[in-house]
Amino acid sequence: MKELKVGLLGVGTVGGGTYAVLTRNQTEIARRIAGNIRIVQVADRNLALAEQVTGGQVALTEDAFAVVNNPEIDVVVELIGGYTVAKELVLTAIANGKHVVTANKALLAVHGNEIFKAAADKGVIVAFEAAVAGGIPIIKALREGLSANKIEWVAGIINGTTNFILTEMRDKGLAFVDVLKEAQRLGYAEADPTFDVEGIDAAHKLTLMASIAFGMPVQFEQAYTEGITKLTTKDIQYAEELGYRVKLLGISKKTSEGVELRVHPTLIPEKRLVANVDGAMNAVVVKGDAVGPTLYYGAGAGAEPTASAVVADLVDIARLQGTKPEQRVAYLGYQLDQQQTLPILPIAEVHSAYYLRLRATDKPGVMAAITKILADMQISIDAMLQKEPAEGESEADIVILTHTTQEKTMDAAIKHIELLPAIAGQVTKIRMETLSR
Amino acid sequence: MKELKVGLLGVGTVGGGTYAVLTRNQTEIARRIAGNIRIVQVADRNLALAEQVTGGQVALTEDAFAVVNNPEIDVVVELIGGYTVAKELVLTAIANGKHVVTANKALLAVHGNEIFKAAADKGVIVAFEAAVAGGIPIIKALREGLSANKIEWVAGIINGTTNFILTEMRDKGLAFVDVLKEAQRLGYAEADPTFDVEGIDAAHKLTLMASIAFGMPVQFEQAYTEGITKLTTKDIQYAEELGYRVKLLGISKKTSEGVELRVHPTLIPEKRLVANVDGAMNAVVVKGDAVGPTLYYGAGAGAEPTASAVVADLVDIARLQGTKPEQRVAYLGYQLDQQQTLPILPIAEVHSAYYLRLRATDKPGVMAAITKILADMQISIDAMLQKEPAEGESEADIVILTHTTQEKTMDAAIKHIELLPAIAGQVTKIRMETLSR
Repeated sequence: MKELKVGLLGVGTVGGGTYAVLTRNQTEIARRIAGNIRIVQVADRNLALAEQVTGGQVALTEDAFAVVNNPEIDVVVELIGGYTVAKELVLTAIANGKHVVTANKALLAVHGNEIFKAAADKGVIVAFEAAVAGGIPIIKALREGLSANKIEWVAGIINGTTNFILTEMRDKGLAFVDVLKEAQRLGYAEADPTFDVEGIDAAHKLTLMASIAFGMPVQFEQAYTEGITKLTTKDIQYAEELGYRVKLLGISKKTSEGVELRVHPTLIPEKRLVANVDGAMNAVVVKGDAVGPTLYYGAGAGAEPTASAVVADLVDIARLQGTKPEQRVAYLGYQLDQQQTLPILPIAEVHSAYYLRLRATDKPGVMAAITKILADMQISIDAMLQKEPAEGESEADIVILTHTTQEKTMDAAIKHIELLPAIAGQVTKIRMETLSR
Repeated sequence: MKELKVGLLGVGTVGGGTYAVLTRNQTEIARRIAGNIRIVQVADRNLALAEQVTGGQVALTEDAFAVVNNPEIDVVVELIGGYTVAKELVLTAIANGKHVVTANKALLAVHGNEIFKAAADKGVIVAFEAAVAGGIPIIKALREGLSANKIEWVAGIINGTTNFILTEMRDKGLAFVDVLKEAQRLGYAEADPTFDVEGIDAAHKLTLMASIAFGMPVQFEQAYTEGITKLTTKDIQYAEELGYRVKLLGISKKTSEGVELRVHPTLIPEKRLVANVDGAMNAVVVKGDAVGPTLYYGAGAGAEPTASAVVADLVDIARLQGTKPEQRVAYLGYQLDQQQTLPILPIAEVHSAYYLRLRATDKPGVMAAITKILADMQISIDAMLQKEPAEGESEADIVILTHTTQEKTMDAAIKHIELLPAIAGQVTKIRMETLSR
């Protein structure tokens, strides 16, 4: 096997981790592949940082295009992020016949179809294990480990920042805004946390997993995305009393009507393993028709966990040098010409169970009125929790867990309930998943 | 890609599942690899069963050697089990230049070095995802997904029968023998359950994982194996009171003195995900130096979960047809000529924390005597539970959790404690693992 020559774009957190892991574990890696992986050029706008990370052992440049155009390089590792320059760099590397490894979920979720097409035309590999759930080898599990299965659904905690925030909200009873500030102070959340807390980052990752699971092109723009900014500790506590945990889940299911592709806060029975994944950790549950439910757990972010995935992709590429494209795993699990553009269900069409919280005046007939509305819409009640009004208040919280119904039916029922004179303000609605079948 | 022609040896549970999954999901599989996998011949001593499983769609034979010697066949799937005929069949298939897929952990744990050597000489693949933890793609995770890491340890619930029994003992407070009978009635345990309940099956699987993790030949005969037959519900309950669950774990750690390779009942903090893996399910925790701890969970046995792994191996082989051996993943993760025969630590040399249960006469000075013995041996106490004597009894249970010490030190301390006049009978010792670092 000839040496695999790597060009590294970006020496931030993951880039630095990649350099460190490749250097520290080069002996083990060489014993595994009977070959060598060597970083021959590094690009970063911060040359001082690049110098510090590499210890002056490697050629440095401020110009990432110098790397993707360097004829000596076999594979480009793109760790810059974003949609614009990163896209141009990746497409240029591909045009130059180089393999690409990237951790850039945003890029692939939005421009994946174009990028994979370009790579197929040039016969090069685009590997992206690090783009989903950090160090957890979930892309490999979905593309290869479960290749015997019809995948029925995928559901995962795939954003560490929000899982950290939800865990803290539950453990310490703190409000979202306060935990967010703490998370920002600790470096678990960005200064602008929108991508994380609004579920966009999770939707990027879910988009990639869903494409692999169901053999369809990426369709990020069709994903339903709802973040955790409106979640209250009250709802987390009520859920707990009823035996549930609240997690930001990315869920994709194949149904006879279409594919569900949705990210939102979700109640999960506390007995499920995935309900007990706390802090910044990630976990993905995959249900296959043959294997049943399987779960993959680990660090979803951080320098070395993400580098673990980047380097594993490099090891695969090193081994696969000289193979024909059909001897490699398809980019998104299915051969590109075998993908089917399945319709993504609008959220109104999705079936789910629900957690509802209402504030109602404590007088006779309220409960009868609410349950009549639900019954009229064929929505069954699974559990109910009626709280006493707080000292000096006349309104009390009522929590209702429903059986499965269609979202638009639930929304119509909620509209009716909100019109009841005894109901104060809006009804809080959170979706529920049992993840059992 | 040319069609991959498969010969199937054995149509029992897993063989039947393999036929069913390959048939049912042939469209998805063909879309993934742009090729076809076809079972062209099936061998089973029970021709009527083979006829029933295959619906008369495939050539049948009672003679497994007819399959391994069939020049039309590319890959032999060995699902017969055992060490003798299975070994001859696998070696003959290899000698005939055929790839092999097997679920036979016993065969590979005991004869793996010989079999992989023979396969390397002929340049054929021997794939065995189904041999460890059924449908969980743990072999792929260890060999490929975590290839960037120095693996530090592996710990898993890798025998569904014993995990089912332990879960029932805990949930229902029933004794081992009673649950075993129930498990046999339900088909979760064999008529002769020795391989499962004595930890031998788990040790086979652990042997394979340890070889991959640490780059060493299989050394099953060096594994320490202790089953669950002597576990009492009392110990399970006391562990619970102290915040622990008891699981039969296969544990392999690389230390500076050597490799630990051991299967035994183990106390695990209840907060760990793996402590909450119940029933017949399996889970493996792998700690890598870059990725940190990762966990893989799913069905460890059963027709279709195991078939999921068998067929995934076939998909890999179909794709890899025409590749050179160096373009494939090494059998045991590391290239055969790069394996190192690391010493396996005898159990007396292993460091562990311990759960001890003693029965002591309830009189002054007993506790002082016990704690003095431990202190003299430099064994620190982490927690203690002293029970009141039952009505009408003069002896009471004392439970002690220790910090880490060497097994031989612990055993010497136990010998001293058992000599105390106030101590009745033997001290019960169960190892503990935090699985945190």
